[in-house]
Amino acid sequence: MDDKTNKLLNFLTECDKMKNIKRRTLIADGSRQETDAEHSWHLAIMAVVLSEYAPQGTNIDRAVRLALAHDLVEIYAGDTFCYDVQANKDKYEREENAADKLFKLPPKEKGEEIRAYWNEFEECATPEAKYVNALDRLQPFINNCLTNGHTWKQGHVRISQVLKRMDPVKLYLPDFWPFVQEKLRWAIDNQLLINDEI
Amino acid sequence: MDDKTNKLLNFLTECDKMKNIKRRTLIADGSRQETDAEHSWHLAIMAVVLSEYAPQGTNIDRAVRLALAHDLVEIYAGDTFCYDVQANKDKYEREENAADKLFKLPPKEKGEEIRAYWNEFEECATPEAKYVNALDRLQPFINNCLTNGHTWKQGHVRISQVLKRMDPVKLYLPDFWPFVQEKLRWAIDNQLLINDEI
Repeated sequence: MDDKTNKLLNFLTECDKMKNIKRRTLIADGSRQETDAEHSWHLAIMAVVLSEYAPQGTNIDRAVRLALAHDLVEIYAGDTFCYDVQANKDKYEREENAADKLFKLPPKEKGEEIRAYWNEFEECATPEAKYVNALDRLQPFINNCLTNGHTWKQGHVRISQVLKRMDPVKLYLPDFWPFVQEKLRWAIDNQLLINDEI
Repeated sequence: MDDKTNKLLNFLTECDKMKNIKRRTLIADGSRQETDAEHSWHLAIMAVVLSEYAPQGTNIDRAVRLALAHDLVEIYAGDTFCYDVQANKDKYEREENAADKLFKLPPKEKGEEIRAYWNEFEECATPEAKYVNALDRLQPFINNCLTNGHTWKQGHVRISQVLKRMDPVKLYLPDFWPFVQEKLRWAIDNQLLINDEI
């Protein structure tokens, strides 16, 4: 084994820690929290399955790479609950530090390639990043509905927060916006969300 | 929501069951079994990270799609332990039946597309399929080494079985064959495998 293959295997072993990062979202049967690795797989397969609904000009294969890499920094930075205002204050700094640490593990060129996927996702400027950001909102939304609003109830979440959070779906995956609206009405009717928009 | 988007979301919800399928392999810290969704994510990111070692002519993005879809039929067929001779006898039939059931969930064209990724992986004839088959052997091998030969010890596995199983790495990812050989020597020295090749 040369130094290069060694570094690549070390990085891939470090990636295994994505299976230890628990998200707030439950898996669809409600039995336990989803892991980052599972979530990233789900987004990647969604990117393939919903390809025809992606924003104009989206390279689906690049979107898949963004989906695979978008949460890698959480290996060191941990998952930040999207409705936790306090934890989100230093999220940027924590994740940049994590990226510095993680993406220097593989050989330089490969580390930069993977970091670029993460950066692109975070900046949300390209069609691919917009598409994956929309999927990253839609997937936990669906699981949250399937588990009777678990995350919303646990976080005492308000409808205005969810509407803001789901903006990428409205903007970049508009064909699925009616589904989101229908589920939000159901969530309000069933008091799974605090209705602050009456 | 029209019938098409509805079918796509139903299929993606069914895909969530990949988080319920437990493999024999443990995650790297040894704390629990890996799920199919986690394993599929790991293979997909490996396909990107080890791209330069793929067989000549491999389209990495297609390989990633194969990795994402290669275990989907296990949602209905379950994970078959590779060293369980009895369970492997009807594996083909069980998985074909599962494929018939699963890939009719999405709209026809999309179902056929995803089934084609699975078929291609199974047939192992294209560079992409050979590459992903090699990764599918290397990833659990690494985790097995990291967890002190857990799967081998549990299954009373012989070195000849592992050598046969690891053939795709030798053939299609030869740069990583020295790593496999080194680890096999270590496994024999530590009696993690039954040495039937003395």
